[in-house]
Order: sequence, then structure tokens, then C-alpha cells
Amino acid sequence: MTVTDELLANAERYAAGFDKGALPLPPARQVAVVACMDARLNPYGLLGLAEGDAHVIRNAGGVITADQLRSLAISQRLLGTTEIILIHHTDCGMLTFTDDDFKESIRQEVGIRPPWAAEAFPDLDEDVRQSVRRVLEDPFIPVKGSVRGFVYEVETGRLREVK
Amino acid sequence: MTVTDELLANAERYAAGFDKGALPLPPARQVAVVACMDARLNPYGLLGLAEGDAHVIRNAGGVITADQLRSLAISQRLLGTTEIILIHHTDCGMLTFTDDDFKESIRQEVGIRPPWAAEAFPDLDEDVRQSVRRVLEDPFIPVKGSVRGFVYEVETGRLREVK
Repeated sequence: MTVTDELLANAERYAAGFDKGALPLPPARQVAVVACMDARLNPYGLLGLAEGDAHVIRNAGGVITADQLRSLAISQRLLGTTEIILIHHTDCGMLTFTDDDFKESIRQEVGIRPPWAAEAFPDLDEDVRQSVRRVLEDPFIPVKGSVRGFVYEVETGRLREVK
Repeated sequence: MTVTDELLANAERYAAGFDKGALPLPPARQVAVVACMDARLNPYGLLGLAEGDAHVIRNAGGVITADQLRSLAISQRLLGTTEIILIHHTDCGMLTFTDDDFKESIRQEVGIRPPWAAEAFPDLDEDVRQSVRRVLEDPFIPVKGSVRGFVYEVETGRLREVK
């Protein structure tokens, strides 16, 4: 039995207790959250989000790459979100390596260098600012009146804004 | 007062009740979930995940692009996950448009055609299979013994495996 099988048993319980009915496709709170994939960062618990409230976009680091810009353009243009919340966090794996070392280690094992930038970063607050700036400079995201960046502290559960 | 400000008030309550202490960086359940950003799809509620359990990677459609492959490579190689769960869902926004139409509408408004593929898809189950295959064919993801794809039914709360 895999962990996936165990989680599927949880999904059956979720379906058995499901009482939300058909919620609308556009997010009720008109917010898109972009966050790191980190296991300790739970955007639902942290921000008090319920089913139907917000788009949640996540990747390694919570960094803004072309795919986040694509998702945000779709979120705003087709589904009406107007605010963006970016969340990095303390003790992030992306602080523990460099793109060059990671890609070189893969090349040594696989024989091919990955085509993507790994997007590791040495400075947490500065990378939040970098991500905010990538959003603000993107020509395909139409609404930029509320684009704010935060660091989630995994040790304390606190969310701190980066100015 | 923005919605972001309201959610920040929720975050203060979360921090006030935070009792998890410093959880380990690697996900306890060694699972990475790749899901659509859709507001109605809550991977924590659905799969019974708690803080510390699993990486959660999300974008528009839950499709596998270069950024998901980057995140999965980091998840497995640096943080020890070994199973992958892919989740698309019914009533997805990605079923409602075509890449060409969306990108042309942006070009007409902004004057530039976006450099990314929008990744819209006309067939839900087939796109889950497409995503699974993109993972299985990627040379940089080392562990592929449990890569399974699902459709979450937003109407019923049910999770259905795609074979």
C-alpha cells in the first residue's frame, strides 16, 4: 500500500462529507495566492481560505517563472481575480543550493543538463522583492493595484510582509 | 480595506494558535501533489494533508510545464519525495478557451503575443494522461514508481482516477 492509496482513502471520506454543492468557477474572494510548494506552508489554514475563495499557485520557491505569469494572466483575464499575494518562507530548500551546483549534479548523473533555471536564491527577502517585481513588470497581467509579498515563518506560524 | 488585508487578519489568528513548532523541511509523507489552481479544489481537505506532509505544486490547469518538472526534480532530488499525485478537475477554466484565441485576444489588447503556451485543453481525461506522460518521459525526475492521475469532481467532492 502506497502513501497515495492512504490519501485516496482520505479523499473518499472527503467526498462522503461533501456538502458544498456546485460552487462558481471564479474565485469568490478575487485573490490569487502564489506560494512555495513547501510542505509546512498551508495557505488554507494560514489565510483562512475555504473552497471557492482563491486561486492557489505553487512551485519550488514560490518564484515567479513564465508558468506563474501564465497562470496569473489566466486568473485575472478569464476568472476575474484582482489581488495577488506572494509567499516565500523561512528555512526554504531554495536557500540551500545554487543553480549551477544542482544542474551540474544532474548532468553528472543523467548526462544532460536541465533546460530550466533552478531558481535557487541566497536572500529570502530579496527574492520576494524579485518575485513582486517580475509580476509588476509583466505586460500580460492587467491588474496590479494590490501585489504584495510576504515571508511565512515556519518556526512561528507568522506571516511577515516584505517591503 | 482590500481582501488581502482581511486574509492577513486570518494569518494573525493562525500565528496566535500555532503549536506545530519547527517541522522538518522534507515532506513527512514523501508525496508531491500537482494540482490545478482552481479555487474549489482544496488539496488539504481532499487528501487529508496536514502541515509538513506533502509538497503541493499548482498552476492553471494542473498541467505539466517546465516549471512543474523543475519543482518535481527539486522535490525528489533534494527533499526525498517518491510518489506523485496529479489532479485536474471538472468544470475547469482550461476547457473553455483555446490557446490561439486567448493569445490573440491578449495581442489585440496589449500589442504583444505572450511567449508562453496557454495550455488550454479540450478533453479532461486525455489531459490528465498527457500530464502523466510528461512526467514519465522527463529525464530529470528520478523516481517514477507511483505517478497517478486523477480528476476531482467539483460537483460531488469525489476524486476519480484516470487510467
